[in-house]
Amino acid sequence: MVSGVTPTEPAAWLAELTAGVATWSTTDEHTAAAGADRSGTRQAGLPSVVVYAHTVADVVHTLTVAHRHRVPVVTRGAGSGLAGGATAGSTAIVLDLASMNRIVEISPVDGLARVEPGVITADLDRAAAGHGLFYAPDPGSVAISTIGGNIATNAGGLRGAKYGVTRDAVLALDVVLADGTVVHTGRDTVKGVTGYDLTALFVGSEGTLGVVVGATVRLLPRPKGQATAAAYFSSVDAAARASVLLATLGVRPAVVELVDGRTLAAIDDLRGTDHATRGAAFLLVQTDGFGAIAEIEVVAESLRQSALSVEVSADAALALALAAARRDALPAIEARGRVLIEDIAVPRSRLAEAFEAVTEISERTGIEIYQFAHAGDGNLHPIIVIPPGFAATEIPAHVQAAADEIFALALRLGGTLTAEHGIGRLKAAWVEREVGPEAHRLMRGIRALFDPRGILNPGTSV
Amino acid sequence: MVSGVTPTEPAAWLAELTAGVATWSTTDEHTAAAGADRSGTRQAGLPSVVVYAHTVADVVHTLTVAHRHRVPVVTRGAGSGLAGGATAGSTAIVLDLASMNRIVEISPVDGLARVEPGVITADLDRAAAGHGLFYAPDPGSVAISTIGGNIATNAGGLRGAKYGVTRDAVLALDVVLADGTVVHTGRDTVKGVTGYDLTALFVGSEGTLGVVVGATVRLLPRPKGQATAAAYFSSVDAAARASVLLATLGVRPAVVELVDGRTLAAIDDLRGTDHATRGAAFLLVQTDGFGAIAEIEVVAESLRQSALSVEVSADAALALALAAARRDALPAIEARGRVLIEDIAVPRSRLAEAFEAVTEISERTGIEIYQFAHAGDGNLHPIIVIPPGFAATEIPAHVQAAADEIFALALRLGGTLTAEHGIGRLKAAWVEREVGPEAHRLMRGIRALFDPRGILNPGTSV
Repeated sequence: MVSGVTPTEPAAWLAELTAGVATWSTTDEHTAAAGADRSGTRQAGLPSVVVYAHTVADVVHTLTVAHRHRVPVVTRGAGSGLAGGATAGSTAIVLDLASMNRIVEISPVDGLARVEPGVITADLDRAAAGHGLFYAPDPGSVAISTIGGNIATNAGGLRGAKYGVTRDAVLALDVVLADGTVVHTGRDTVKGVTGYDLTALFVGSEGTLGVVVGATVRLLPRPKGQATAAAYFSSVDAAARASVLLATLGVRPAVVELVDGRTLAAIDDLRGTDHATRGAAFLLVQTDGFGAIAEIEVVAESLRQSALSVEVSADAALALALAAARRDALPAIEARGRVLIEDIAVPRSRLAEAFEAVTEISERTGIEIYQFAHAGDGNLHPIIVIPPGFAATEIPAHVQAAADEIFALALRLGGTLTAEHGIGRLKAAWVEREVGPEAHRLMRGIRALFDPRGILNPGTSV
Repeated sequence: MVSGVTPTEPAAWLAELTAGVATWSTTDEHTAAAGADRSGTRQAGLPSVVVYAHTVADVVHTLTVAHRHRVPVVTRGAGSGLAGGATAGSTAIVLDLASMNRIVEISPVDGLARVEPGVITADLDRAAAGHGLFYAPDPGSVAISTIGGNIATNAGGLRGAKYGVTRDAVLALDVVLADGTVVHTGRDTVKGVTGYDLTALFVGSEGTLGVVVGATVRLLPRPKGQATAAAYFSSVDAAARASVLLATLGVRPAVVELVDGRTLAAIDDLRGTDHATRGAAFLLVQTDGFGAIAEIEVVAESLRQSALSVEVSADAALALALAAARRDALPAIEARGRVLIEDIAVPRSRLAEAFEAVTEISERTGIEIYQFAHAGDGNLHPIIVIPPGFAATEIPAHVQAAADEIFALALRLGGTLTAEHGIGRLKAAWVEREVGPEAHRLMRGIRALFDPRGILNPGTSV
């Protein structure tokens, strides 16, 4: 958190700001909507103004004015963040980039796309598909979140272990710095080592180092062929151990998803299915590419050593049916009440232990926690259902205490607080415990270098 | 380049330095050897002392003393760098990490290894193979270069397009900062977004931000199966175009290597082979994994549209024979004289143009330039043979002028000065032209933040 922001009253800068941008609003309706993200949390008060940027010039003007007058700026895309990284309180400017949503170029030969930050991630992938390509990172929010938001949080997804996360997909960025300076980072080539890797520095920085106004991203050949294995196990422990064994077989599954028994029961409640009668945990494995079928056969043979049942299919429609227990997981949990979605990652070898420890937290505290995991990269989503009777923007103290226990667990197991959702405001107090005081000091030094007046998303990230 | 280093005389700090480390030397023989890398270039004078570090404590002590007395420190591993990134001149301390070469741990389940920086890259890969894993980055120097050096230059290799470069393989680092502080960056998981990506910042920073004393790197399942296609073309242009087409076929070759006709003739001279009679350019494509054979068939069918000949094999011994024209390329060129190895990358769509323009530079200037490329990622190595009659540590002015033309060409084609060898001292004057003044200012700001006294590898990198 960078301190030292003592914004002047809106009157002093609002006229100057709004004179230079085409679309903006100060109505309570708009500022209230622009001040919240999907974490459900809010800061005190409403932001002063929302700027709906359509051009780089809008962003430059906004930051120039904000910098001059030391006004906090919170950048947002779709507002789909889960960590409070795009909430804005009183006196802040919200800089909304959702309208900067052009796919500027797709080059199949160079394997890249140039996009504005407001492009919906699924829209980019759909456009790439038209050229036989795909955009690899596939966060759960892919249908609603933007590339800019994905860059801000270094979003991951189901295919992270095989195809990487957002950082691996971003080649170059156009960024407006806190003082309005425009900078280009990176290059159009996969390789390159001229100077320091500023691109990677901006990825995951949650709007605290600059505002991304353009990105050059990698597109890969869309995998030919896909095969799916779905298995039920007698326990989460058995399923986790089976998922970990896959790492030693020479296969590279695109997807390895684990769903716990409590979540299976919630799906059955919602859909009238019978998942919970088939096992106490579910594992979904997908392979892709020219060797998909050969790979899934190796996978299935391994799963059969410990699973209650294993089904395999290379047929797209059947595969979709097999994946239902994973696809319905979040909707089924959200049907139980308001959720707080956690996002730890642990080394794969500790995954079974992590599931067990979260279950123990749930049982001891009486707080409902459901779990599913991108098991291939050790990324576990414990999902806490917040009991009724609390304000919609509040995280009750005993729920926060359970979340804190989960963070501590992740660190104890050699893992991380957040694999792909970001620190936001909700986990900012925990950053130093994960990275240590020396790395934290370097990070804060970098932040002060890039944003000496501390106007960019204060209270968020490092 | 960070200025402001005004080192005190050795006498003032040498006793303090050598009292705290077990192994060091001030003999001319040792300091001369430690002051040069494989670029062949030298700085004026000899370094004052070489510290052969065996422990983190040795590195901490060395940097603590150097920081206190403002003495320049040049860190080296195998000294295999090609860009003058590990040369040291008068009064400098050379910090040699080659003896810190333990593979501390290999975890097949977590898919990672913990290594000291002096581990030879091929040794790590060999150890990984014992567990059915591999270390993906495979720079040409793999048999002699160290992981620490690979990290310093973000080394690439033949498999970059499919498996990534060093940055993609490094999960976490232990780094000693300029003032002797030890910091840990990153984590043991593939995903993670707690704080800024300091790991990526250190990768490629050429010893200017800190000294890497430990690394946690990713190991991937060793690909099962491999297939090779070797094709000769009537021109480099035809071969480059054919290589670019591969990107649109849905395949992901592990290796796409292009060798020009002049290099083929040099190989024939050296080995008595007949490559040049078979074509004016050679393309080697390798696929791997469960779908290797199916993929190579798609590749071969495409190559046959424009090649003079295409041979395919999934047999390891035959594949080795097919790859001879690529494997012999550098030895054949080095047999012609002392070489200056350039390392540009361009977007794949500009590869044919880059080959042609380099050939034009060679013909116009009369300087011998040979070319081969990691075509899959647009990484072209123009190799200049320095005419006889110049000192072994000198780059003649007309050769430097040709190199400068190649740099300018790379930038004109939207590419980079250096794909995988680093900036070192040889390209430092070109950095700002590639990254622009604003990004350069940020990079130099980061450098000053991490190394306020400017003692780390002055004159190198940004």
